[in-house]
Amino acid sequence: MRSFSTSSADGVQQLLFSVGEVPGVLWTPHGAAGTRPLILIGHGGGQHKSAPAVLHRARRFVTDLGAAVVSVDVPGHGDRPVHPEFSGIATANQARLGAGEDLITVLTAFQARVAEQTVPEWRAVVDAVQALDHVGAGPVGYWGVSLGCGLGVPFVAAEPRVRAAVLGLGSGLANAGDAARITVPVEFLVQWHDERVPREQSLALYDAFASPDKSLHAHPGLHADRLPEHELDSAVRFFARHLTS
Amino acid sequence: MRSFSTSSADGVQQLLFSVGEVPGVLWTPHGAAGTRPLILIGHGGGQHKSAPAVLHRARRFVTDLGAAVVSVDVPGHGDRPVHPEFSGIATANQARLGAGEDLITVLTAFQARVAEQTVPEWRAVVDAVQALDHVGAGPVGYWGVSLGCGLGVPFVAAEPRVRAAVLGLGSGLANAGDAARITVPVEFLVQWHDERVPREQSLALYDAFASPDKSLHAHPGLHADRLPEHELDSAVRFFARHLTS
Repeated sequence: MRSFSTSSADGVQQLLFSVGEVPGVLWTPHGAAGTRPLILIGHGGGQHKSAPAVLHRARRFVTDLGAAVVSVDVPGHGDRPVHPEFSGIATANQARLGAGEDLITVLTAFQARVAEQTVPEWRAVVDAVQALDHVGAGPVGYWGVSLGCGLGVPFVAAEPRVRAAVLGLGSGLANAGDAARITVPVEFLVQWHDERVPREQSLALYDAFASPDKSLHAHPGLHADRLPEHELDSAVRFFARHLTS
Repeated sequence: MRSFSTSSADGVQQLLFSVGEVPGVLWTPHGAAGTRPLILIGHGGGQHKSAPAVLHRARRFVTDLGAAVVSVDVPGHGDRPVHPEFSGIATANQARLGAGEDLITVLTAFQARVAEQTVPEWRAVVDAVQALDHVGAGPVGYWGVSLGCGLGVPFVAAEPRVRAAVLGLGSGLANAGDAARITVPVEFLVQWHDERVPREQSLALYDAFASPDKSLHAHPGLHADRLPEHELDSAVRFFARHLTS
């Protein structure tokens, strides 16, 4: 782990770092010492590790839970260079969509391929961050919707340190197999008028989680519409129940 | 309104009363004075106004919100006498179910008939209770699932004093028409493996609410399985947002 700049604002300390080729950002309470819960936030498609929506959630988790929060750029996003293979697939996918192929089918195969790279990357980031004295080997949570769900489900399925996950805006077609290996508590978000993930595919993914403790929270709105703030309140309490007690 | 016994325990005062033929119970904070939010809880089928599940929720709403909570017996339930017409329909329904008719179809017609009586009864109870100095004409909320949803949707649709409602375990077949007249915030509960209300009927009722602010919360479980305690926490915060600010 290589550490770059550190800054602090409103009680939250921010550390830019990299682990191998992966650029990341870690937020912790200002002056934190000792072990604490760690929450990994997976960003959405076309976004990056410190996009406004990621930063907003990170600050809440740090401030309300005393947690550490980490976020990294997905290949081809944020500070990462163009990924020749993924970029080639994306270009080919545009052609497939133009030829009338189903969006969710096209994205599903792509995300599965990207997850082969991001799952080990994210596990290495958790290793590196938990080696820091002010993070330590506490319980881990995961928050991610849309692309953050497509890549998050395989990560949560593979990583036994994750004790609780907020996921959503994802599809059973893409992730049902990995979801069936997840048994930790899940809070699953659905946008009721999602134009990118068919409703039955959202419900199929919720169905697929093997977790005895799983809640589905739906709200009216399209795929990229802003989630209600009370849904973030709910995520804070969900992580408080499962990571801090 | 005729008042009967008053008792007090753990900071909650309980008043048994009747309005016309309707027996009810009112819970308020001990020593309460002045206007406060009022939450009406509708009990489930075969239950009554102070069943343990009603009492548990009532205590939380009184303690956490400083609200007044009122609950009354549905005709033929609790302290009310057998209702000849409804009892006759119930007996006939057993025969219809025995003959293979669909449960939800049979219950739907019955609940619509019962609601013709309970909607004016409940409105009269709100009138009477809000005339008390320690309740007053504050905002009104409603909480009811199963029978409490079947009778609650027509009540909420008819009663403009209701500002927010938690409903659930109900069917679009039964209540979509009234739901389409409801515009206040709704939190709608679904048991994912409900054996009495088909899942598509639950989702259809959520769909039917005209409320711009409506959340669906689903959990694994059968119709009568206990809801997670964190769902009651959520209801407390929902009413706090809509009745106390």
